[in-house]
Amino acid sequence: MDEEIADQTAAINMEQEPVEEPSKNALKKANKQKKLAEEKANKSATNTTKEAARSEAKKLIGYGISQACDDGNAKQGITSIDVAKDEDFSAWYQQTLTKGDFLDYYDVSGCYILKPASWFIWEQIRDWFDLRIKKVGVRNCAFPLFVSEEVLQREKAHIEGFAAEVAWVTHAGSAKLDKKIAIRPTSETVMYPYYAKWIRSHRDLPLRLNQWNSVVRWEFKNPTPFLRTREFHWQEGHTAYLTQEDASKEVLQILEFYAGVYEELLAVPVIRGRKTDKEKFAGGDYTTTVEGYIAATGRGIQGGTSHHLGQNFSKMFGISVEDPSAKEGEKKAAINVFQNSWGLSTRTIGVMVMTHGDDRGLVVPPRVSEIQVVIVPVGITAKSSEDERTSLHKQVDALEEILKAENIRVEADKRGYSPGWKFNDWEMRGVPLRLEFGPKDSAAHCVTTSRRDIEGNDGKGTIQITELAAGVKSLLSSIQKDLYGRADKVFKDHTKTITSWDDFVPALNDKNVCLIPHCLTEKCEDEIKEMSARTDSDEVVDEKAPAMGVRTFSEPILALTLKKECLL
Amino acid sequence: MDEEIADQTAAINMEQEPVEEPSKNALKKANKQKKLAEEKANKSATNTTKEAARSEAKKLIGYGISQACDDGNAKQGITSIDVAKDEDFSAWYQQTLTKGDFLDYYDVSGCYILKPASWFIWEQIRDWFDLRIKKVGVRNCAFPLFVSEEVLQREKAHIEGFAAEVAWVTHAGSAKLDKKIAIRPTSETVMYPYYAKWIRSHRDLPLRLNQWNSVVRWEFKNPTPFLRTREFHWQEGHTAYLTQEDASKEVLQILEFYAGVYEELLAVPVIRGRKTDKEKFAGGDYTTTVEGYIAATGRGIQGGTSHHLGQNFSKMFGISVEDPSAKEGEKKAAINVFQNSWGLSTRTIGVMVMTHGDDRGLVVPPRVSEIQVVIVPVGITAKSSEDERTSLHKQVDALEEILKAENIRVEADKRGYSPGWKFNDWEMRGVPLRLEFGPKDSAAHCVTTSRRDIEGNDGKGTIQITELAAGVKSLLSSIQKDLYGRADKVFKDHTKTITSWDDFVPALNDKNVCLIPHCLTEKCEDEIKEMSARTDSDEVVDEKAPAMGVRTFSEPILALTLKKECLL
Repeated sequence: MDEEIADQTAAINMEQEPVEEPSKNALKKANKQKKLAEEKANKSATNTTKEAARSEAKKLIGYGISQACDDGNAKQGITSIDVAKDEDFSAWYQQTLTKGDFLDYYDVSGCYILKPASWFIWEQIRDWFDLRIKKVGVRNCAFPLFVSEEVLQREKAHIEGFAAEVAWVTHAGSAKLDKKIAIRPTSETVMYPYYAKWIRSHRDLPLRLNQWNSVVRWEFKNPTPFLRTREFHWQEGHTAYLTQEDASKEVLQILEFYAGVYEELLAVPVIRGRKTDKEKFAGGDYTTTVEGYIAATGRGIQGGTSHHLGQNFSKMFGISVEDPSAKEGEKKAAINVFQNSWGLSTRTIGVMVMTHGDDRGLVVPPRVSEIQVVIVPVGITAKSSEDERTSLHKQVDALEEILKAENIRVEADKRGYSPGWKFNDWEMRGVPLRLEFGPKDSAAHCVTTSRRDIEGNDGKGTIQITELAAGVKSLLSSIQKDLYGRADKVFKDHTKTITSWDDFVPALNDKNVCLIPHCLTEKCEDEIKEMSARTDSDEVVDEKAPAMGVRTFSEPILALTLKKECLL
Repeated sequence: MDEEIADQTAAINMEQEPVEEPSKNALKKANKQKKLAEEKANKSATNTTKEAARSEAKKLIGYGISQACDDGNAKQGITSIDVAKDEDFSAWYQQTLTKGDFLDYYDVSGCYILKPASWFIWEQIRDWFDLRIKKVGVRNCAFPLFVSEEVLQREKAHIEGFAAEVAWVTHAGSAKLDKKIAIRPTSETVMYPYYAKWIRSHRDLPLRLNQWNSVVRWEFKNPTPFLRTREFHWQEGHTAYLTQEDASKEVLQILEFYAGVYEELLAVPVIRGRKTDKEKFAGGDYTTTVEGYIAATGRGIQGGTSHHLGQNFSKMFGISVEDPSAKEGEKKAAINVFQNSWGLSTRTIGVMVMTHGDDRGLVVPPRVSEIQVVIVPVGITAKSSEDERTSLHKQVDALEEILKAENIRVEADKRGYSPGWKFNDWEMRGVPLRLEFGPKDSAAHCVTTSRRDIEGNDGKGTIQITELAAGVKSLLSSIQKDLYGRADKVFKDHTKTITSWDDFVPALNDKNVCLIPHCLTEKCEDEIKEMSARTDSDEVVDEKAPAMGVRTFSEPILALTLKKECLL
């Protein structure tokens, strides 16, 4: 599948450098920040022994972006996102992910470490989606990571889309393998020879398999965490039907589940659409997609794709059954099965971060946040007695227990840092709701609440302790709803229907998604892309795929507005 | 970790050939079976068009073992396991897995397709284990598949254990990479440079991460499905503690969870133990293990390992914190953290199959079986009217609904095959409970039950329809309990305490696990292995690791009986 590939809508020009080469700008910022942190540092001196022991390890993994984001000393002071989202979106995205503890850079370029807070979100998506596909009859399985060269190259149009990015294993230990072996870039050709073997009768249909795995596409340009990575995690569904009608129904059923992941879990609005032939999945009949909108860049972004493969692969791989409608005694014709494939990746998490994150860092919707509520004890000063501290911590523990009992994912932060430091830390991590609890709250039998999604006093409130669980649940539910509502308004406000060419490029430059009439010929599509691209001569164009790097419109949305006449 | 490696106890001499080279014997059997099936086939002729279209695909994936197991024509007749478990264990295991629809062979040797029924079991294990480790504070994450050569080779003793089996990626597309990149054989060296970066203070401890992934060890000899495969799925936990005491506690806590997976889910008894120094994980301090017993071979089998790594890796990778117990003003010494790693793989499924499977195929414990109950309509003959058939099927649907409503995983089999064919099919697949329902049952308001784990009339019974759900639940619970009970009795009956050398080899030859006094020196260990090996000169010895291929005793059990005196 083309989750990370034929992806012009994701061309948001994330120009950050890979970890090996931090930009001069980033280094300057890092140094400035480090200095600041050192001044603020309330600890005396760097432990040189420790640093020495660690330096070798640091060398091994490269010490690039991490300098800018997570220096040991900086941690003693207040670390924060030091670039605004609308100022340098790429740098903001990097910092938000690393300082928010979602991700770390890795010493193999284009690969990233997904830390527990982001992996938890992927697990939520998995469980939600898995429940739904299993209910409709899809079964999970596991095909191997490896595929032989011969099998990989079976479907020509398909492999052309991936050939340049296939990682090859040529050696095991010190021995050279007889034949090099590919790491799957997607599993159509891995699985379909076995579909040919397993599907022997119409009784074996539909065959609906899915797997949660990782695939490898060795992209050489501009890796971007979650959006464009050399190894990425996803699910890939592969199904076979007797009739095109049934297969087509499934394509949309799955697309609706993908929309649900975005809308219900991640609070991200998406548009369901169909790609143009030029942009569809290589080897398939047509591609449907859910597309989001990143306000900061004004670009559409591909969210997940559900493909109808028609009989292209089934003919190549000889997947057929006898026509069950043939009458007794008639020669039973062989019918090639109709196939779909569909994939949703950890890209979902990147889209979520870009949609909701702000200048203070991550903002995570409650339904997918590993920690939904953090409780921070406040009002304890140097003058407070040990008894006062102990008593407050005990009460905080009790509050935590009340919420845990209601299956709210809560953490009481009793670490030895100041409340201000903690507030900032949890804000960077995007925890949706903070409860503050001090002697004054205790006396008033309430907790102070602070919503992550609304800054300042507008996001503050109190809940009586007697109504703690219900109050927290209600707030979490409001946060989830409001995050979606705000993103949806922004998306709608930036969706323009354009009927004249003169309005088109200005609308794009105003960060809009444009609905246009279009004849759907490839010639016009290319021309529109080229002409809109020219307005952005200062932008970096991806050499590998010139049509993808330009500021262009979203094909799926275009396809939705299918009309015979054309903007050109 | 050494899940699939330093694994003398798994030396059950599975001598089956890889898929590329089906043995002459297997081919002979296959042909014989094919002929029989063709004779029995109630369909007229092979559809040659279909076969032609498929033949190309068959060539691609190799058409070895599949011929023996799953030929298209064979499916029309009764397919069954055509070799007894105690006659040719290796062939029995192969057939049981493929005909039971757990697994298919793959055209990259040593890699296998885990089909939905076996993958479902792995998901059950994952959910069960995940719940428990999360409860005690472990968090999941995802580190990359790849590791650079430099990082991989950091810990010498460790890499020595894996070097010969590491798969290397050298090319991407047609481009040669500057530096070759390894596919992780396990993730110690992948993760620990980052532990050094992330762990900055004792406040960051314990750090407890886990991942569910696959790793690659390119073994060159005797691949065996689930037990010894080039890619395998597992979880790997990696944790760091301030004190050895806390780390050691975790080692046993995890080991107990592993035992729980076997005992509670898979109904397989295991012994908890500790490996000798010779057999421990390369680079670690000590290795604990759960070990099962395969009665058919009389061998112990490693089930899962939980290692204490001590400070070996933390010294290598510079993972340290300042001593928090240092007094104010004192120089704070750097303490290297104490680490554990622990892994449990899909090998669990192989052990389960070997333990419970019988001459009719798989036997799957109810708790992990994808389908717990199958309902087969019976008593419909050629003479029955269409109304009678429809009416029976409706009643069967109603029974299915009753059980589904109680969250019992049930399937009504209304396919167009004979009841006998279906009985056999579901028995091969190991579905724990079959309900038969025909006009006679309907008239008597009951269903006929047939337990997979008890053959013939002893396993039969009836349940009144009014008590269907309760009756089925009770039966499933009995089956789970009885499977464990029987396996446990066999294990206990074959566990012998031996105090004289003269009794030792005969006891081993009688398929016993032996508890012996031992001084725990490596010299004696080697001698005992060598001397016991000599008794089996006709067995194939694994050239790569001579000490592992012989019929030997189980180290962990030996270690459990630690005494100063020695059998030698």
